[in-house]
Amino acid sequence: MYEKILEIASRRGFFWPSFEIYGGLSGFITYGNIGTKFKRNIEDLWRTFFIKPQIILEIDDPIINPEKVFSASGHLEHFKEYLVECSVCSNVYRADHLVEEQLKIEHAEALGSEKIISLLKKSRVKCPQCGGALKEPMTLLTMFQMTIGLKGDEIAYGRPETAQGMFLNFRRGFQHAHEKMPFGLAQIGKAVRNEISPRRGIIRLREFTMMELEFFFDPKQETCPWLREVGDEEVNIITEEMEEQNVKTPIKEKIINLSDIGYVKTEWQSYFMGVSKKFLKALGVQDEKQRFRAHLPNERSHYSAQTYDHEILTEAWGWIEVAGHAYRTDYDLKAHQKGSGADFSVLRSDSSRFVPHVIEPSFGLDRLVYVTLECSYRRKKDRNIFALPKRLAPIKISVFPLVSKDGLPEKAGEVYKLLLDSGFPVDYEEGSSIGKMYARADEIGVPIAVTVDYRSMEDETVTLRDRDTWTQVRQKIKLLPKILDQYFKDQITFRELGSNLNIA
Amino acid sequence: MYEKILEIASRRGFFWPSFEIYGGLSGFITYGNIGTKFKRNIEDLWRTFFIKPQIILEIDDPIINPEKVFSASGHLEHFKEYLVECSVCSNVYRADHLVEEQLKIEHAEALGSEKIISLLKKSRVKCPQCGGALKEPMTLLTMFQMTIGLKGDEIAYGRPETAQGMFLNFRRGFQHAHEKMPFGLAQIGKAVRNEISPRRGIIRLREFTMMELEFFFDPKQETCPWLREVGDEEVNIITEEMEEQNVKTPIKEKIINLSDIGYVKTEWQSYFMGVSKKFLKALGVQDEKQRFRAHLPNERSHYSAQTYDHEILTEAWGWIEVAGHAYRTDYDLKAHQKGSGADFSVLRSDSSRFVPHVIEPSFGLDRLVYVTLECSYRRKKDRNIFALPKRLAPIKISVFPLVSKDGLPEKAGEVYKLLLDSGFPVDYEEGSSIGKMYARADEIGVPIAVTVDYRSMEDETVTLRDRDTWTQVRQKIKLLPKILDQYFKDQITFRELGSNLNIA
Repeated sequence: MYEKILEIASRRGFFWPSFEIYGGLSGFITYGNIGTKFKRNIEDLWRTFFIKPQIILEIDDPIINPEKVFSASGHLEHFKEYLVECSVCSNVYRADHLVEEQLKIEHAEALGSEKIISLLKKSRVKCPQCGGALKEPMTLLTMFQMTIGLKGDEIAYGRPETAQGMFLNFRRGFQHAHEKMPFGLAQIGKAVRNEISPRRGIIRLREFTMMELEFFFDPKQETCPWLREVGDEEVNIITEEMEEQNVKTPIKEKIINLSDIGYVKTEWQSYFMGVSKKFLKALGVQDEKQRFRAHLPNERSHYSAQTYDHEILTEAWGWIEVAGHAYRTDYDLKAHQKGSGADFSVLRSDSSRFVPHVIEPSFGLDRLVYVTLECSYRRKKDRNIFALPKRLAPIKISVFPLVSKDGLPEKAGEVYKLLLDSGFPVDYEEGSSIGKMYARADEIGVPIAVTVDYRSMEDETVTLRDRDTWTQVRQKIKLLPKILDQYFKDQITFRELGSNLNIA
Repeated sequence: MYEKILEIASRRGFFWPSFEIYGGLSGFITYGNIGTKFKRNIEDLWRTFFIKPQIILEIDDPIINPEKVFSASGHLEHFKEYLVECSVCSNVYRADHLVEEQLKIEHAEALGSEKIISLLKKSRVKCPQCGGALKEPMTLLTMFQMTIGLKGDEIAYGRPETAQGMFLNFRRGFQHAHEKMPFGLAQIGKAVRNEISPRRGIIRLREFTMMELEFFFDPKQETCPWLREVGDEEVNIITEEMEEQNVKTPIKEKIINLSDIGYVKTEWQSYFMGVSKKFLKALGVQDEKQRFRAHLPNERSHYSAQTYDHEILTEAWGWIEVAGHAYRTDYDLKAHQKGSGADFSVLRSDSSRFVPHVIEPSFGLDRLVYVTLECSYRRKKDRNIFALPKRLAPIKISVFPLVSKDGLPEKAGEVYKLLLDSGFPVDYEEGSSIGKMYARADEIGVPIAVTVDYRSMEDETVTLRDRDTWTQVRQKIKLLPKILDQYFKDQITFRELGSNLNIA
């Protein structure tokens, strides 16, 4: 499935492996003109779901951070992988990957490094390439290191997550949020990780975009006033207890109940899990393909008191994580207080002071790009269609002349310009057969194709074709801007696009 | 001036120096909630000026690139600074900075490294810190180096410009542009440079955002069909000849004539210089504060046959470059052909083949953020105002209750929600005096402040206040969405915002 999607994505300008002309480099992808728009549409949709005006503020902090940041945050100590090298062929493997592949154990990461290493030794796992004996495991920091300035004395790293920026700028953010609790800081930006052996294309990248939100709240203020906004959402959940007992079938529960039952430690986290569920639904991921899986204590990051991965069932790779919902407590703010001497405490109305706790919903944008494409992928009579949600489609309308003669291209050019000037993301094509042009539009996920034919020259009407059903209606050219605007705002159906032909 | 703007920018959430709690690190800035929106508005405006639908395609390529890319591009050989170390105190300086500061020579970079070094020696320049003798100059590669993978055998660099991505992906881009010449690839993204001693805050950063466009054309096709779109723009220009003769007063010339006279080598470059001029005007930079200054051959980058810097006169630092317009010829495509073995040639209609030439307009976004703020800065009765162009204002409307009692906050909350739901970037404040709230709005550059007062409770009207003139008009609440939409689309003036009060 991934290969199929990658083939269309490369050919049509969504994305492709970077540095192709130099033979490629695993873990890097390039977005084309279609993909760049598509990605931006997902970012904008994320904002409409997660950014609460004046309460959750978006910031933009550097990718390169000085070492102090990561020594305080704990990354220098914890952000490591265990590796094993073959004593014969010198190939190197991630210990958890070996355990997964050779011993057929799922989520080996969750076992923790000690367990993984003892499993490797006990099971006498050999080099998968040459069968040679493996050396003692070693650790490697998976951040990119560089030096700043002339003398190489200032060590810096590419950030492996955007989150630290929100902690470092907590004071400024609080000030700009009018010093009111709770509040949040969010960021959409690049992060980089020196992944040892990136596999699975766009799913595990060395350079990727994250959409992260750090929500700061008073741990004594446990009630989330927004919980009801998403309370009725039902989610599939695999709790820590279920994970421990290896229960694979999730239970269904409403968001509103998660904290009361004790599945989720705070209502603030339940709220963001509910928003996350709705957001993925808006990307086109059906309910039954979504689940929240708790991390076992061994699997959790060093900063987390509870983590639920928001996982999506893909055809290509089974369940994959698209978001992490972590309860980071006051770990990070306290760590940077200690590292820097800054004071991150906040005054309660009763004049006591506290360091805020943090809930973090954290999304990998590139994975969402893939998941959205996969979930919208349809085959129809040998054709590929990306049935993208309308608001995410990078191009909303394609305009074609039926043939490239008899004035049809000029008329189609007028229609194109009319729609462009009305603000629609629209494109124009001519010179191929109409079938080929429809096929291209379907592969780019264009919801509406507008065709100028001979009748257009007589009565100033065009055909409108629906990407998903291939049905067609006819409409007057001059009505297109208004009626298509209604269609893209979900005020009318595709059928209705052709319905008031006579009243106009 | 910079200190003044930085003070407001930090306090109000535009931007501030990064890593403040750790004592800062030169060359890095953080954008707050206001700055993040502001920056995005400038990006979107840039797109409306520079992206031609279906002809100029936006892509997004990685920041981290393998060494091969930069050895082929010539950066490994040329992207260096000359440095001198003091033999006594071990302080290190950029050779060109020393020449500028100690010998009062402008644009020392333009002299070329040999000349700079001979000047330093001839003039016996000493260490500005301790007066010690300086050692022999040395060179330093100013790209951030890192290693990929486990064994450190794959060397990579942070890109110092986004441009290489457009050359690497030339074939893909051409395919997605329907294999039609001319076409362009554009990119908005981060770049990083290991600047030795970054000075001047937001103007010289180690991590920054560029907006770059590589426009590919047939050098035998010299006529730019779009030139007339910007032909009447008059620009201030300092040609290479004038630079050589140290002429400081620019000549005024229309864009349409630049190539004919011989000031600019191709019409394609003249076109983009015209667009650049109009774009800066839309950011609020007056004509007389703009000029195009040619690089001398010594000053030009290794890939350029002609470069004009688009410079802006700032109060803080005099003339600074905000964009470079370089004629990169076929240098880069040929360099990567050679480096990779790829074929970047294109077929002409007469069946001959050619490697396209390239015009590159390249903008530093962070500098534009500063320039736009500085150009819009006004003082009025002890108050600071950023008179930002309406379309760039991060917040379009602020809503306040006159006092925080008697139901006014609730009514103001309704007005806020009405405007928010109508899609305006709007904020709400209460609890301070109306003067303080106006002052805050002015410092954030909010064009319209809406105040709910006691009369609002009786007749459902509010006052609208203009940021720049502080004049006020009154309008019915229910008419606000429609009439403010007209105002922000420049269909009506501020006065007219209050004019149809009686007809509604």
